[in-house]
Amino acid sequence: MSNRAPAGALFVISAPSGTGKTTVVDRLVERLPNLVRSRSYTSRPRRPGEVDGVDYNFVSRDRFEAMVRAGEFLEWADIFGNLYGTRRQDIEDLLADGHDVVLVIDVQGARQVRERLPGRAVEIFVLPPSYEVLASRLRGRNKDPEEAIARRLATASAEVGAVEEYDYVVVNDELDRCVGEIEAIIAAERARLARRRPQIDPILATFPR
Amino acid sequence: MSNRAPAGALFVISAPSGTGKTTVVDRLVERLPNLVRSRSYTSRPRRPGEVDGVDYNFVSRDRFEAMVRAGEFLEWADIFGNLYGTRRQDIEDLLADGHDVVLVIDVQGARQVRERLPGRAVEIFVLPPSYEVLASRLRGRNKDPEEAIARRLATASAEVGAVEEYDYVVVNDELDRCVGEIEAIIAAERARLARRRPQIDPILATFPR
Repeated sequence: MSNRAPAGALFVISAPSGTGKTTVVDRLVERLPNLVRSRSYTSRPRRPGEVDGVDYNFVSRDRFEAMVRAGEFLEWADIFGNLYGTRRQDIEDLLADGHDVVLVIDVQGARQVRERLPGRAVEIFVLPPSYEVLASRLRGRNKDPEEAIARRLATASAEVGAVEEYDYVVVNDELDRCVGEIEAIIAAERARLARRRPQIDPILATFPR
Repeated sequence: MSNRAPAGALFVISAPSGTGKTTVVDRLVERLPNLVRSRSYTSRPRRPGEVDGVDYNFVSRDRFEAMVRAGEFLEWADIFGNLYGTRRQDIEDLLADGHDVVLVIDVQGARQVRERLPGRAVEIFVLPPSYEVLASRLRGRNKDPEEAIARRLATASAEVGAVEEYDYVVVNDELDRCVGEIEAIIAAERARLARRRPQIDPILATFPR
């Protein structure tokens, strides 16, 4: 981080499917003008209503695999046969422009970020209030067959153990409180000594030595 | 920190004289019901209007020195011949009760806390917007002779270099923003993995293994 450019902070948010992370992050991005969500690359076909370069960067599987071989991804995953990834240069550019960037990725993706940019990301895990609440939220969506729900719940049970690897934990029992806590984390991280240097140094320079 | 008792967090706030730290901390304590300011011990005589056990714990110099010898202070200082200190047991008791505790102490005091409770305190430095603003605030108070002001400014110039030792830095250019940032730091610190254990563990226990 240079002393002159106020480089942004990188946030990783992980949560089991059904925890409400999409709503939480939509709210955050709405409320914090400087916070941007990175746009992922995917090899999966575009669904009706999705826009290339808005929802995802849609690329062919060949192109995605070439990007993997070229080491272009900060993290990527094969999810039931479709590839999803975050391009490292995209993130570096956003941070260099002074944006705070949020990556909404699973615990495997978070591990890759931790490995490739050690100590760089502030990691937040969002927990549902309980397994029972998670199960009833997933069933309440009414959009997945029971088999898919059972699979999501099994994945969630495996994922929540990874909470230990994160810096912060927020429980999504009440949306406003949950969003407020993550906003506080983002505000606090901006006040960290290293990130405040561009503001601090000119102030210190006004004091006689 | 036990897994069962939600032990509070310890915050150290330092700022040069004239930065407005008293107002800032008054606001914080007003707004955050769980946050308490520790009551210091002092050997200086009680001034009119001060109440023992409220403003300070007033003790004789002999008693204070006996407490120093017994290692009772988390930090203490001789300020122009008067002794001031924070009793370690007072802080431990407040934290064990689940209170968040804020110590408003100078950079020397913060160093003692860092030495005696390594890694325990979250340290926040409050900076004025500039040396010039600090000087005019001190002169505007109109309560000190110019000689005392010059001495405060010299101390401030020496103290601001210690900003490097702190976790967070907040600039008091606008009171509400400054207080808001410290509130965010306190909220964020409560969401740290280690401090969330008492909330997290019962949630994790609801998930099948």
